[in-house]
Amino acid sequence: MIIDCHGHYTTAPEGHDLFRELQKARFRDPSKPRPDYPQISDEAIRASIEANQLRLIRERGADVTLFSPRASAMAHHEGDEALSQEWTRFCNDLIHRVTTLFPETFVGVCQLPQAPGVPIAHSIAELERCVLELGFVGCNLNPDPSGGHWAGPPLTDRSWYPFYEKMVELDVPAMVHVSGSCNHNFHATGAHYINADTTAFMQFIEGDLFADFPNLRFVIPHGGGAVPYHWGRYRGLADMMKKPRLREHVMRNVFFDTCVYHQPGIDLLFRVIDIENILFGSEMVGAVRGVDPETGQFFDDTKRYIDALPIPAEAKAKVFEGNARRVYPRLDARLASQGR
Amino acid sequence: MIIDCHGHYTTAPEGHDLFRELQKARFRDPSKPRPDYPQISDEAIRASIEANQLRLIRERGADVTLFSPRASAMAHHEGDEALSQEWTRFCNDLIHRVTTLFPETFVGVCQLPQAPGVPIAHSIAELERCVLELGFVGCNLNPDPSGGHWAGPPLTDRSWYPFYEKMVELDVPAMVHVSGSCNHNFHATGAHYINADTTAFMQFIEGDLFADFPNLRFVIPHGGGAVPYHWGRYRGLADMMKKPRLREHVMRNVFFDTCVYHQPGIDLLFRVIDIENILFGSEMVGAVRGVDPETGQFFDDTKRYIDALPIPAEAKAKVFEGNARRVYPRLDARLASQGR
Repeated sequence: MIIDCHGHYTTAPEGHDLFRELQKARFRDPSKPRPDYPQISDEAIRASIEANQLRLIRERGADVTLFSPRASAMAHHEGDEALSQEWTRFCNDLIHRVTTLFPETFVGVCQLPQAPGVPIAHSIAELERCVLELGFVGCNLNPDPSGGHWAGPPLTDRSWYPFYEKMVELDVPAMVHVSGSCNHNFHATGAHYINADTTAFMQFIEGDLFADFPNLRFVIPHGGGAVPYHWGRYRGLADMMKKPRLREHVMRNVFFDTCVYHQPGIDLLFRVIDIENILFGSEMVGAVRGVDPETGQFFDDTKRYIDALPIPAEAKAKVFEGNARRVYPRLDARLASQGR
Repeated sequence: MIIDCHGHYTTAPEGHDLFRELQKARFRDPSKPRPDYPQISDEAIRASIEANQLRLIRERGADVTLFSPRASAMAHHEGDEALSQEWTRFCNDLIHRVTTLFPETFVGVCQLPQAPGVPIAHSIAELERCVLELGFVGCNLNPDPSGGHWAGPPLTDRSWYPFYEKMVELDVPAMVHVSGSCNHNFHATGAHYINADTTAFMQFIEGDLFADFPNLRFVIPHGGGAVPYHWGRYRGLADMMKKPRLREHVMRNVFFDTCVYHQPGIDLLFRVIDIENILFGSEMVGAVRGVDPETGQFFDDTKRYIDALPIPAEAKAKVFEGNARRVYPRLDARLASQGR
């Protein structure tokens, strides 16, 4: 079985995004009418999925996708906490409808109602709702709800601990995933995403978070940002900081996906990172949608790069399936309940 | 000949750093006496270099190092413009003394007196002084003088143009190099440095800076941040943004050094980036000073990784010498004047 741990609903029916625009417009001008969330038919959802993700999944040969709301549209820096709570609930409910319409293919991962300066404990109720009521198996945690200003505390700060306690209790991992950038220095998918991945990993090195939470698990997307390319730097910095080796200090709890859009990058990832720490992901339909003129294939068809690796079938099976079932126990339980 | 394009004076005599502490203390409390810059003897400078950089250069087999003040101590976010101007001048003068004491080994690259919110034009006089009076061949340009808050404009903004005009007039490149971080999210050498490299490259993709300045040249250090690892992403994003191919759009003007501290990273760099765009660098004595337990060699002995590459001698000669002489014409002229 092939499980893609990183898919976003970037093709949601138009009314969903239109609601968001009206919602933000009313925040800026409260004299405007409160928008109603639109009626979106099952047919519209089906069509948006079948023409995009499902078509590509079938063409490329995956079976299951961990599916979450569009990351760039989480936009925790827009509006206030109430706006974020409302938007997040609609986004997660829409994902739930997708997972209900396509129960064999899509499994839910939730957005959180974060907002700058708001305690992360305020996101616990939505996590519980999504996991316990909607059957979701993980969440996307934004390490910078200020959208590129990095105005909050690092992920190792104790202010995050109430949320981590709930993650451990529910046995769900988080993907560390920022949203759009409102800092004009950072292009969202070309700088802010990758920087956030790198930043989170270095925060984990500097801290001792996993001594406090040995069962806490994070997936760092986009192949771990810059980390595998600079693996020597990170090993050396951990050594200079008198930390344990990365394998013990961080890599029992941190996993990288395979959203790296060319063969040399995937080759490097698999050369330096233990196979147990790599989860197949494509971020599809996502950041880079074109065809690589050097290969004639889609940049984000990351399965091809893994297929091309000269590694044993058992290793590929871990990356495609086994590791995801281990990191997301609720996914494993759901698949098992389907006899898979 | 082997030219290291990236060395910092991280081992300056104690009095230099002590002055900085007193200077900052007086900024915070102007009732304190104005500190005098200490008398530093030639012997103290010689000793600090011979025991460190020169010893390592000899052991590792390099010939010439482009030498600049300690990057993390530029700290443009500390104090105000006057403080930055004073500190920068002392730092560059100290580098000049090193280049005078060791004229065959060290060639100067200057720090700039940047400060948050201060026009970059205020850094032109120091660039001219260093290049025209002190014989320096390049500069370190900080894309984020706010020290991790990224409060200024991107490098493609027209506010930087007066400085770029002077760089072109003097025919000197800039290394894009941030300083320390005062944002607790970003570890300096583990996150802020690498993020800045990635961010600068993506800014160059988004903009059209090199259409305006076809002769402007930047070295992005630390192997280009995350860029080579995500080369497919950057090619794909440029394509989505309807930009020319990266080779034409950016890579006529942008070069990466080899400060990547393990063999797999260097292998990737050389696999995806054209040989004309890679300059040998070690950042030595710098960010990571230890010995890699996996190899028994120093992490930052980057020459070993290049020596181990199965590429022709002519390619290595470009990386070790030819590219640096092309990117830094004033270095080439200086070496030629020495009959080298």
